[in-house]
Amino acid sequence: MTIVKKLSFDANCEEKEKYTLQNGDDYYDQSHSVDVEGKYTKPNEAHWLLRRIYILSWIRNYDRERAFADLIAGITLGLTIIPQSIAYAALAGLSSEYGLYSAFIGSIIYVFFGTIPQVSIGPTSLMAILTLQFCADKPVQVVIVLAFLAGLVELAMGVFQLGFIVSFIPGPVTKAFTSGTAVIVVFAQIKNLLGVRMKGFTSIGEFFSSIKPSDAAMGISCLCVLLSLRLLSQVKFKQDTSLTRRLKKVLWYISISRNALVVFFTGLLVFIWVKKSSMEAVPFALSSKVSSAMPSIKLPPFAFEYQNRTYVFTDILHELGSGIIVVPIVAVLANVAIAKAFVKDGNLDASQEMLTLGLCNIAGSFFSAMPTCGAFTRSAVSQASGVRTPMAGIYTGLIVLSALSILTPYFQYIPKASLSAVLIAAVIFMIDVAPVRELWQTNKKDFFSWVGSFIICLVAGVELGLLFGIVLSMVFILLRLGNPKIEVSLKKHESLTYVHVVPLSDIYYTGVDTLRGELRGACSLYRNDFPVVLDCTRFMQFDATFTEMLTAVSKEMAENDVLLILQNMSLKVQEMLPVNGNLRFCQEDSQLISHLQQEKESAAPQLEAKL
Amino acid sequence: MTIVKKLSFDANCEEKEKYTLQNGDDYYDQSHSVDVEGKYTKPNEAHWLLRRIYILSWIRNYDRERAFADLIAGITLGLTIIPQSIAYAALAGLSSEYGLYSAFIGSIIYVFFGTIPQVSIGPTSLMAILTLQFCADKPVQVVIVLAFLAGLVELAMGVFQLGFIVSFIPGPVTKAFTSGTAVIVVFAQIKNLLGVRMKGFTSIGEFFSSIKPSDAAMGISCLCVLLSLRLLSQVKFKQDTSLTRRLKKVLWYISISRNALVVFFTGLLVFIWVKKSSMEAVPFALSSKVSSAMPSIKLPPFAFEYQNRTYVFTDILHELGSGIIVVPIVAVLANVAIAKAFVKDGNLDASQEMLTLGLCNIAGSFFSAMPTCGAFTRSAVSQASGVRTPMAGIYTGLIVLSALSILTPYFQYIPKASLSAVLIAAVIFMIDVAPVRELWQTNKKDFFSWVGSFIICLVAGVELGLLFGIVLSMVFILLRLGNPKIEVSLKKHESLTYVHVVPLSDIYYTGVDTLRGELRGACSLYRNDFPVVLDCTRFMQFDATFTEMLTAVSKEMAENDVLLILQNMSLKVQEMLPVNGNLRFCQEDSQLISHLQQEKESAAPQLEAKL
Repeated sequence: MTIVKKLSFDANCEEKEKYTLQNGDDYYDQSHSVDVEGKYTKPNEAHWLLRRIYILSWIRNYDRERAFADLIAGITLGLTIIPQSIAYAALAGLSSEYGLYSAFIGSIIYVFFGTIPQVSIGPTSLMAILTLQFCADKPVQVVIVLAFLAGLVELAMGVFQLGFIVSFIPGPVTKAFTSGTAVIVVFAQIKNLLGVRMKGFTSIGEFFSSIKPSDAAMGISCLCVLLSLRLLSQVKFKQDTSLTRRLKKVLWYISISRNALVVFFTGLLVFIWVKKSSMEAVPFALSSKVSSAMPSIKLPPFAFEYQNRTYVFTDILHELGSGIIVVPIVAVLANVAIAKAFVKDGNLDASQEMLTLGLCNIAGSFFSAMPTCGAFTRSAVSQASGVRTPMAGIYTGLIVLSALSILTPYFQYIPKASLSAVLIAAVIFMIDVAPVRELWQTNKKDFFSWVGSFIICLVAGVELGLLFGIVLSMVFILLRLGNPKIEVSLKKHESLTYVHVVPLSDIYYTGVDTLRGELRGACSLYRNDFPVVLDCTRFMQFDATFTEMLTAVSKEMAENDVLLILQNMSLKVQEMLPVNGNLRFCQEDSQLISHLQQEKESAAPQLEAKL
Repeated sequence: MTIVKKLSFDANCEEKEKYTLQNGDDYYDQSHSVDVEGKYTKPNEAHWLLRRIYILSWIRNYDRERAFADLIAGITLGLTIIPQSIAYAALAGLSSEYGLYSAFIGSIIYVFFGTIPQVSIGPTSLMAILTLQFCADKPVQVVIVLAFLAGLVELAMGVFQLGFIVSFIPGPVTKAFTSGTAVIVVFAQIKNLLGVRMKGFTSIGEFFSSIKPSDAAMGISCLCVLLSLRLLSQVKFKQDTSLTRRLKKVLWYISISRNALVVFFTGLLVFIWVKKSSMEAVPFALSSKVSSAMPSIKLPPFAFEYQNRTYVFTDILHELGSGIIVVPIVAVLANVAIAKAFVKDGNLDASQEMLTLGLCNIAGSFFSAMPTCGAFTRSAVSQASGVRTPMAGIYTGLIVLSALSILTPYFQYIPKASLSAVLIAAVIFMIDVAPVRELWQTNKKDFFSWVGSFIICLVAGVELGLLFGIVLSMVFILLRLGNPKIEVSLKKHESLTYVHVVPLSDIYYTGVDTLRGELRGACSLYRNDFPVVLDCTRFMQFDATFTEMLTAVSKEMAENDVLLILQNMSLKVQEMLPVNGNLRFCQEDSQLISHLQQEKESAAPQLEAKL
């Protein structure tokens, strides 16, 4: 293949014409525009702002089957998010309604802007801990303003398309983060599953002796029921009749409803128990009581009075300090990592996710919500409940709303052990240590990224584990950038001999020192006798570091009477370099040859005089 | 130029033979070995260990001229380092002899291993502050062990050739660091120059009113003398006779001795003043008194008793904590930055400098020294005194030794104002804000690196300014790595049409997402009708992130019946990818063509059926 022609779309495009004629349809997708050279440009569909309302892209294809799957997943998620919101609000030092407001707004807003069905925005342990860290012993209004400001920063990150940071999370790190988080959830929930109340243990014996038999029986049986029901969807029938097909569908619905069913029936059991005897007679640990208070819309409290002190906006900023930056960054990082773990085939628009998270938090601050982000556990439960689109959030939001109004008294009957069983059953299949062996065999760097991230997730927190993985992978890249491969060889063209210096990888400023060394080495090796040709095509930055080096090297070479020819250097950079009798520029190989020939002719008399 | 032949050294090497014949000498430098393909390999001179003793590479060419220049510079440096050592020891909370021991050992060891004449290892303000931070209120033995451990870490960094980190300091950042440090030195010394004693000022008026006229007169006149003497070396004579040449040499010697002369004569003035009247009558602030105590060699105190408590090695480690890592890293960073600022034409062996710094600190700990590194001020003074080789350190060391023994009583007569004048005159010409305008015109990124580093040097400390510049430049690179350029075009070869996807810059894992997007976009643009050829030559890491993406994309393409051909992929990676009917590999273009032809033939019947 000697000549490869770029297909022009105006002429010479037989392939296209043939197709257009035969099926009467224009060959090329109209949503893309193609420039004259046949390079395609990005699709130019709706207005940028309209495309941000992501629901418009999928709502037209929304059908009954999806709606039913989303309904089941949404209800299940509602039953999970309510006790979680109460717990995480308490962890942040707030009363339960703030958690529920956050869950409501997060779920509803995500429906319209979110891209990943499994993601559920609401209170999380990570956000609760950060809120506590930055707002401990401060009035609740400060927390609400934090949600607003964090939302603004997240929105800005989305608007400025910072979603590319998702490219900086390598595959093995996402996997390690997923497995690490799942392990943490299992360990955190195992105490509720077994009814253990104590906080610290000095021995394993002490742990086992503090297990409460009634809770443990409830928890373990729920877990067994969930794991068995999970298998229902995989049941295979020998015959394929309309009956078996219908039966299969029923089994599938039971299977994906398993989480909601377990929560509902264990709650019902407790409800009957209470009605028959009394609240005290129930032998299970139950969920916290929900306080009934509908969310109302009002401006975030940018100025307020608290304990005879007036807080203006600058006071609040001062109280929050670095939290205004740290909270959104951690939220975005966790959210993006979760999204990457659940997204299909890596098709993730992280900027849109940032924008959505920002909107959730800003809107939340108008409903007195705490800072929110996506939660790994809820995504796992959604996944296990067969979620199909972000529409599930509507049902979750409605369940949360009903918990704050008509259903308020009933949520306290849900046993903690059955909720823990739901979480454990959802995340346990995400623990995957199989990659470790494979990574060890294929790529040691990936192996160390996985192991390091996993261990740090477990011992120091998931956000630090994630950060470690990202930083380690970057260090590996930077090490390569600091030592680029450069080929130095002596080449001949007819009677012309020259030293050819060709970088084999991209040169950034980090590679300039290596290149300087190679150029010097080449000169000293060939005793300054041949012109040196430096191929500049792989230079990515023509910056001061580069021009400084080139100025110094060309000066040295001029002192030794060596011609330096820079090939494929842009005109702009040529002007930045000092004028020097021994420096030439060329683009084409023919130009190179003529420079070399000139040099040879002018050098010949000198050489003869020398010898 | 169609064929470029690599010169083989066994045959066909006319050029070489001709030269060998004509001057009877072998053409190629024997210190380099050249492999058969004409690529050169690194020079293979002395044993690696022997080459570490850097003095061996220059001592043979050491002549009288260099010796005289080094003598002047060494004496000047000695007069500067003694009061500095006392001051920095006090800053670290130690008595003066510890500073002088450090100066002595640092100067002597550097002679044998150091590569940059201007660098002077000894106490510095940076090291003093860090020592204070990690060893405040702890016995002095802990400081000495810190010097030992920091030295070990620095030595290890040198041995493991971590010198490449110097490539990560861009040119503009080195310049900003230099100017920033010089500005800090000027501001720090201006108080001593003017005899101001107060520590904090509320207004400029208060500063001016606290100036001591006698000190100010001394300082400013010293400064004027220094600046005038500096110009002496540039004096030009109309005639070029042996007399004018001799005169020129004398003027040059006076010029480079100016710092030593100013310190000596102002000291002499004070000495005579004291002899004529009394110590109290002298109207100038004088240097601190040196306590006479010769250094003695002994093991670093790895275990000792202090205030009835026994410290073993682990106790010391515990006391030092993160200092064991932080101190050497800061020392190496500062040292490398200073070395880079003073080195000629960027010819810096940073690993050797790290190794030398490590040896200085380890040896120092055997002489009860505090942690040391290179000082910017001393390098500037050395430079201004015309230093030629590291040999100057011998004279500096001897001066320090004499200050600790026979000359002890005389050093207290040196006025502080004249020392400040020396430092200011040495660094003031290193303040260079000219690059700013040039950088703004040529490269905005360089401009922001310079301005950011400079400002942070001034407000937050030189080490943070340096770090900021390094990190910022890396972020610029990482942004590019996250968004590599990829060309997608439709190409034709005879009757074969295919989509050609060619990355135009190196692809690391950070570019995998962009590539995935381009591959997907290409498929959707051309409606899955043409085979896609992906050129893999610029893939730098075939890791899990890459194989995951390729697996997902090839699966998608297989579903749409699109052939994916990977060109120039190594065999090892081919095995890592899943077997897939729609995935092909090829190296040569001819192989590519045959794959495309096969595809076209097998697709033809299907296509006809479809139409």
